[in-house]
Amino acid sequence: MPYVNIRLAGKLSREQKQQIAQEITDTLERVANKPKSYTYIAFDEKPHDSWAIGGKLLGDDK
Amino acid sequence: MPYVNIRLAGKLSREQKQQIAQEITDTLERVANKPKSYTYIAFDEKPHDSWAIGGKLLGDDK
Amino acid sequence: MPYVNIRLAGKLSREQKQQIAQEITDTLERVANKPKSYTYIAFDEKPHDSWAIGGKLLGDDK
Amino acid sequence: MPYVNIRLAGKLSREQKQQIAQEITDTLERVANKPKSYTYIAFDEKPHDSWAIGGKLLGDDK
Amino acid sequence: MPYVNIRLAGKLSREQKQQIAQEITDTLERVANKPKSYTYIAFDEKPHDSWAIGGKLLGDDK
Amino acid sequence: MPYVNIRLAGKLSREQKQQIAQEITDTLERVANKPKSYTYIAFDEKPHDSWAIGGKLLGDDK
Repeated sequence: MPYVNIRLAGKLSREQKQQIAQEITDTLERVANKPKSYTYIAFDEKPHDSWAIGGKLLGDDK
Repeated sequence: MPYVNIRLAGKLSREQKQQIAQEITDTLERVANKPKSYTYIAFDEKPHDSWAIGGKLLGDDK
Repeated sequence: MPYVNIRLAGKLSREQKQQIAQEITDTLERVANKPKSYTYIAFDEKPHDSWAIGGKLLGDDK
Repeated sequence: MPYVNIRLAGKLSREQKQQIAQEITDTLERVANKPKSYTYIAFDEKPHDSWAIGGKLLGDDK
Repeated sequence: MPYVNIRLAGKLSREQKQQIAQEITDTLERVANKPKSYTYIAFDEKPHDSWAIGGKLLGDDK
Repeated sequence: MPYVNIRLAGKLSREQKQQIAQEITDTLERVANKPKSYTYIAFDEKPHDSWAIGGKLLGDDK
């Protein structure tokens, strides 16, 4: 641990995922003393029509 | 919040997901006083062979 | 399946959870043809200070 | 319940998933007295580039 | 990875959790070639009245 | 969305959670163009004996 799960609509590039993973891992080490090697991060990039906010699905998947 | 995650085997149509999202969002507002705009719902439509019940995978994906 | 996970800040009464569970289970049967007996629902009632929206933790737990 | 979610990088064969599901369901019955018919298992086979360990994404998906 | 999340109603003893964790970790190594040191397991022991099956909450927590 | 779930063993202070939430929300806006107001973060601070790594439970809860 820690285990971090990031769920969002649409796709991220490999570079975006790499940057996000690095920053979150750094944050957890700096703020919570969690050694970097223990942090797992899993991204769930979901189709837009699999998310609803306020009872309405997000727009069609692009 | 609330965040609601619905995981099931097989696919739903956009219309089914829209109807389910609307009804659950309504329920959470009416029963638990959660404003609709705050409710997030994420659907995970999984292949049948990624679910097991009673130690047996569900049938092949249709 | 389906498996439904409802995560929210604060506590619900047993009566609220019962009502929400019944309505969601009904919705999934009526809209998606999922037999009621297969639907599992798990509530995660979390402390307010374990949720952040827009980068700010919710208020102190009541 | 129980509900077991197994998340890993890469793909498993149907035979691997069947074997894992059977063994975990057996374990939960033998060790924790959970009747087999109640145990749900969901596999999330994720692309390698959706996992990070120690702040680095795993290698490209094969 | 893998990351395994086990959610169930009621409490397990430390010995039960230790036994379950060991067996699942062994299974994932033997069947799916996942090195033991990479497997994370998180148990969520939930109150009975936070689970519903078939639209009915489980009995009062013991 | 995005919805971010951070699961770790042990407790964080309110200040640690506030700092982590702010940094992750900033990262998702800067790197992935996700408006801050849409980002939900939920922390799951779990007892040490509810986590296993390599088939062994972590030490007793402190």
